[in-house]
Amino acid sequence: MNGDGIPRRGLMLVLSSPSGAGKTTISRLLLEADPGLTLSVSVTTRPKRPDEVDRRDYSFLDSAAFEKMRAAGDLLEHAKVFGNDYGTPRAPVEKALAEGLDVLFDIDWQGARQLKGKAPKDVVSIFVLPPSTGELHARLRRRAQDSDDVVAQRMKRAPDEIAHWNEFDYVVVNRDIQESVASVRSILTAERLRRQRQVGLPVFVKGLSEGL
Amino acid sequence: MNGDGIPRRGLMLVLSSPSGAGKTTISRLLLEADPGLTLSVSVTTRPKRPDEVDRRDYSFLDSAAFEKMRAAGDLLEHAKVFGNDYGTPRAPVEKALAEGLDVLFDIDWQGARQLKGKAPKDVVSIFVLPPSTGELHARLRRRAQDSDDVVAQRMKRAPDEIAHWNEFDYVVVNRDIQESVASVRSILTAERLRRQRQVGLPVFVKGLSEGL
Repeated sequence: MNGDGIPRRGLMLVLSSPSGAGKTTISRLLLEADPGLTLSVSVTTRPKRPDEVDRRDYSFLDSAAFEKMRAAGDLLEHAKVFGNDYGTPRAPVEKALAEGLDVLFDIDWQGARQLKGKAPKDVVSIFVLPPSTGELHARLRRRAQDSDDVVAQRMKRAPDEIAHWNEFDYVVVNRDIQESVASVRSILTAERLRRQRQVGLPVFVKGLSEGL
Repeated sequence: MNGDGIPRRGLMLVLSSPSGAGKTTISRLLLEADPGLTLSVSVTTRPKRPDEVDRRDYSFLDSAAFEKMRAAGDLLEHAKVFGNDYGTPRAPVEKALAEGLDVLFDIDWQGARQLKGKAPKDVVSIFVLPPSTGELHARLRRRAQDSDDVVAQRMKRAPDEIAHWNEFDYVVVNRDIQESVASVRSILTAERLRRQRQVGLPVFVKGLSEGL
């Protein structure tokens, strides 16, 4: 439903970016501001970091459990990054969409591409870019929990991720976190107003026309 | 340019609606709020209303002058409504776009269709619907300058206009003028962030990647 009571098709909002561009902070602020949006929690085989909470940040699985989900078709998308598996469980996404919620995905370009392939009309994808290379470095270093090795590894991977910027619908350069959140919220508001997403419009317009 | 200094392709924002749905008020508030947006002033052969200002609301022409513009290809779109001609002069639109401004068009479905045909990538179209038939009637009657005949004629034309709602990219139901303006502003913000409209991104991303 939109605010005006016209039934609407749920959308899948994908946020991707190189590590350190600010995507996770944008996601958190977006979810706090918008009760109609819920996060898709990915599953992963990588070890939990000290500040992470199981089932909030990721659902942490062993390789056997991940492979079982993948083989059963229970993952909407999956990708291997730094030797670890990541995936999006299908069931919670379908449940949320059926309840009229929109779903937010914090996934990489590989996942974005698979999701877009499966639901081209329902996926809206945004790529978040850092304002500069220096800023990307600085943000990665500020993450105290990561070792120098991890920072170096993430920086090394940034060009691969950035190389896929041109597969996304929208691009937001994250110079200021509040501005970027406002930009993403505008995109979400606009996409909800797309004619083809407001599936209740034919009935609404029919009612209007009959009254004329 | 976007706020972040990345060169951007200008866009043509079309607002259409049946008479009395609130489109003209939305346009005015939108222009006041957004200095990057300028109005395309249409030409018309219909008589000026007492509260209208020549070259602000319309440029008022006689039929010969209109026909001369049309024949010379100086109109981006034109349509006949209630026996009067309406059209969009090409030159001011091209000038505004070249200066990096976005252009707002307050035109009907016939004009919207012609404009979309000429610049499919640059036109973003929004259809404004009244919340109900009763409200449409009430708003038309509130326009003191129109005679009962004109009100009746406009109401009679509403179904034809509404019948074309499904040719537009976005649909906004105008229940509250401030909410509708916010909706249209979100659409404008989002469309400015579309990857394909930010023509400076390849250079910006190249710079980023070289620094990595």
